[in-house]
Amino acid sequence: MSEEFTVVPVAHVVGGRVEPGDDYWGGSRAIIRVDPEQFTEGAVVGLDAFSHIEVVFRFHLTDPTDLHAEPRRSRDNPDWPAGGTFAHRNMRRVNWLGVSRCRLLKVDGLDLHVAELDAVDGTPVLDIKPWFGVMGPRGEVREPAWPAEMLAAYYAAPRE
Amino acid sequence: MSEEFTVVPVAHVVGGRVEPGDDYWGGSRAIIRVDPEQFTEGAVVGLDAFSHIEVVFRFHLTDPTDLHAEPRRSRDNPDWPAGGTFAHRNMRRVNWLGVSRCRLLKVDGLDLHVAELDAVDGTPVLDIKPWFGVMGPRGEVREPAWPAEMLAAYYAAPRE
Repeated sequence: MSEEFTVVPVAHVVGGRVEPGDDYWGGSRAIIRVDPEQFTEGAVVGLDAFSHIEVVFRFHLTDPTDLHAEPRRSRDNPDWPAGGTFAHRNMRRVNWLGVSRCRLLKVDGLDLHVAELDAVDGTPVLDIKPWFGVMGPRGEVREPAWPAEMLAAYYAAPRE
Repeated sequence: MSEEFTVVPVAHVVGGRVEPGDDYWGGSRAIIRVDPEQFTEGAVVGLDAFSHIEVVFRFHLTDPTDLHAEPRRSRDNPDWPAGGTFAHRNMRRVNWLGVSRCRLLKVDGLDLHVAELDAVDGTPVLDIKPWFGVMGPRGEVREPAWPAEMLAAYYAAPRE
């Protein structure tokens, strides 16, 4: 497949956690700073009417050789089924794209103040979209038990 | 900002609608064909346990000069507020990234049969993730009235 595309950051995460980690994103705060060289404040007008945004970002700290397309168990837990790269949401994936929803607390100029964004300080952000309820998953949602088990402490407050 | 990243399709949309359009994605069916040159069937193992997937794709048919970072009204409707590029989810955006949820009907080899994916035949797919309920928007969701008004017929059946 010879197609390829160049993408550029439209923003960066400023503040919040410095180290990536599997859990304890509860209470985290950060700023998504929209690039002032590309955008004016007009680019974020109207976003403050939404409680949540969807953020597409680059897992920029991932070792690019740490790719696992073939089935593996999340967190190497023998209680959970092995799944291929597309059955996981972690950073070990071609293109290193993350997609997260977070709460938008405040828009201040080109700074989007957000809560519980699971991306670390310095993360390049490739897109920001408002969360439209209509665009969520439609109809009955079915998933196996392991994601909720795995993520039981994901949005817990950090341990001292 | 000098950072840029190269991304490659991991899959393509095969079938379904040929023309992009604002509405009437109801009942549409397509295949997301994972690239057999990059992946074996191991890459999709476990995905069939999920009813929905999240798909990151490239709005590849968009005229790249049709960018509107500054505030504009959706569908030029004077009843709706003008919003900047990041207050919209349409294709007029830097990087031309779309993020959609769709129903996963069946996994057949590297073919993911999906329903109501709002991306046309030939669309380059940059990532595929399972939908984890825990990763949806957390807490109370607030949004203005215009997205639901605008999208009232988005998932309606096509008109004859």
